[in-house]
Amino acid sequence: MSEHEISKAVVKRLPRYYRYLGDLINANVERISSNELSTMMNVTASQIRQDLNNFGGFGQQGYGYNVKYLHSEIGKILGLDKTYNMVIVGGGHLGQALANYVNFERRGFSIIGIFDINPALDGKIVRGIPIRMTDELPQFLKDNEIQIAALTLPKSGAETIAPILVENGVKAIWNFAHTDLHVPEDVVVENVHLSESLMQLSYDLNHRKMKTQ
Amino acid sequence: MSEHEISKAVVKRLPRYYRYLGDLINANVERISSNELSTMMNVTASQIRQDLNNFGGFGQQGYGYNVKYLHSEIGKILGLDKTYNMVIVGGGHLGQALANYVNFERRGFSIIGIFDINPALDGKIVRGIPIRMTDELPQFLKDNEIQIAALTLPKSGAETIAPILVENGVKAIWNFAHTDLHVPEDVVVENVHLSESLMQLSYDLNHRKMKTQ
Repeated sequence: MSEHEISKAVVKRLPRYYRYLGDLINANVERISSNELSTMMNVTASQIRQDLNNFGGFGQQGYGYNVKYLHSEIGKILGLDKTYNMVIVGGGHLGQALANYVNFERRGFSIIGIFDINPALDGKIVRGIPIRMTDELPQFLKDNEIQIAALTLPKSGAETIAPILVENGVKAIWNFAHTDLHVPEDVVVENVHLSESLMQLSYDLNHRKMKTQ
Repeated sequence: MSEHEISKAVVKRLPRYYRYLGDLINANVERISSNELSTMMNVTASQIRQDLNNFGGFGQQGYGYNVKYLHSEIGKILGLDKTYNMVIVGGGHLGQALANYVNFERRGFSIIGIFDINPALDGKIVRGIPIRMTDELPQFLKDNEIQIAALTLPKSGAETIAPILVENGVKAIWNFAHTDLHVPEDVVVENVHLSESLMQLSYDLNHRKMKTQ
């Protein structure tokens, strides 16, 4: 694959392509045209061609895309050909929900530690992983190579934990706390702000198209 | 407020303004300039002025924005001046995590029902709300006015439940299942696809800026 810069808008669409192509593989579909993919995904065929052209020559005129090949190439671009060690800081319902997603494991994201400050959770086993107390986190990060940390704890906790993660070499933070973390520029943060997503839904609900009878 | 169409990009930024303005209110800040807000939020002052100009005359030259007024106006635009009844379909960890977010309640989103197909969860109380069996959902929707449903269940379940919600008048679906729901055009869907968010993080991790020493 060429290493030119891909636009952020295209990158944001890649996981969805990856999901649809995975479904096609499961359905034993070997190749697909941009028109067919367009109908399935409800985006224009020209958008699909433009997006996928970024990665060079995957499609062939009159033949379509090789589903398995395209799925694997997009996977590589997304970094899914590697494996990552991950910790979850915040062992409440949301943290436990993440720990229970077997799909993350299948995609190469191994959750190897869960941390919480609540003594009542100490030693609780979630899908084979014991919940540890948060004061053990710095040593755990030193002893294990952790690339990704999910923060599923309140705002104030997240702001305390982020510097500890950074000091101990974590380069990617999946932040569910309702705050914007301040981290050095070589550390990446992906925010999942659930309240903001709910507000978006509320906006859309209040500005939706009325049914045309 | 003027009822002209606001661009989707601006709407996507409104919840973040709302969050920062709420923090300012909590800190007893009465007014703020676009420059100060710009520094706090790490976006350009001109972007802030452009965004907030969409709602007409909130800012005054040399005075800045009235924090409380702006917070309340953005809240109205987002529909947060109303209250909504909400159900959660899928009473596992993720569903229970949502049910436990007291902030949703404070913003006017009342969770009044949680549903699951697992008999082991039948009658379990989550923050005062009993988990009911999913076969009771259609009647519950008929008996209560529900505007929003959160789907925190696997893909196949979501595809079965969505039409039941639509038939019974639910107009907004907060979809956590890894599938694109097909609903009539007067029903709005907001997707939270956690795997896709994690892939985004993995992409960013693999394409991040190296530290400049």
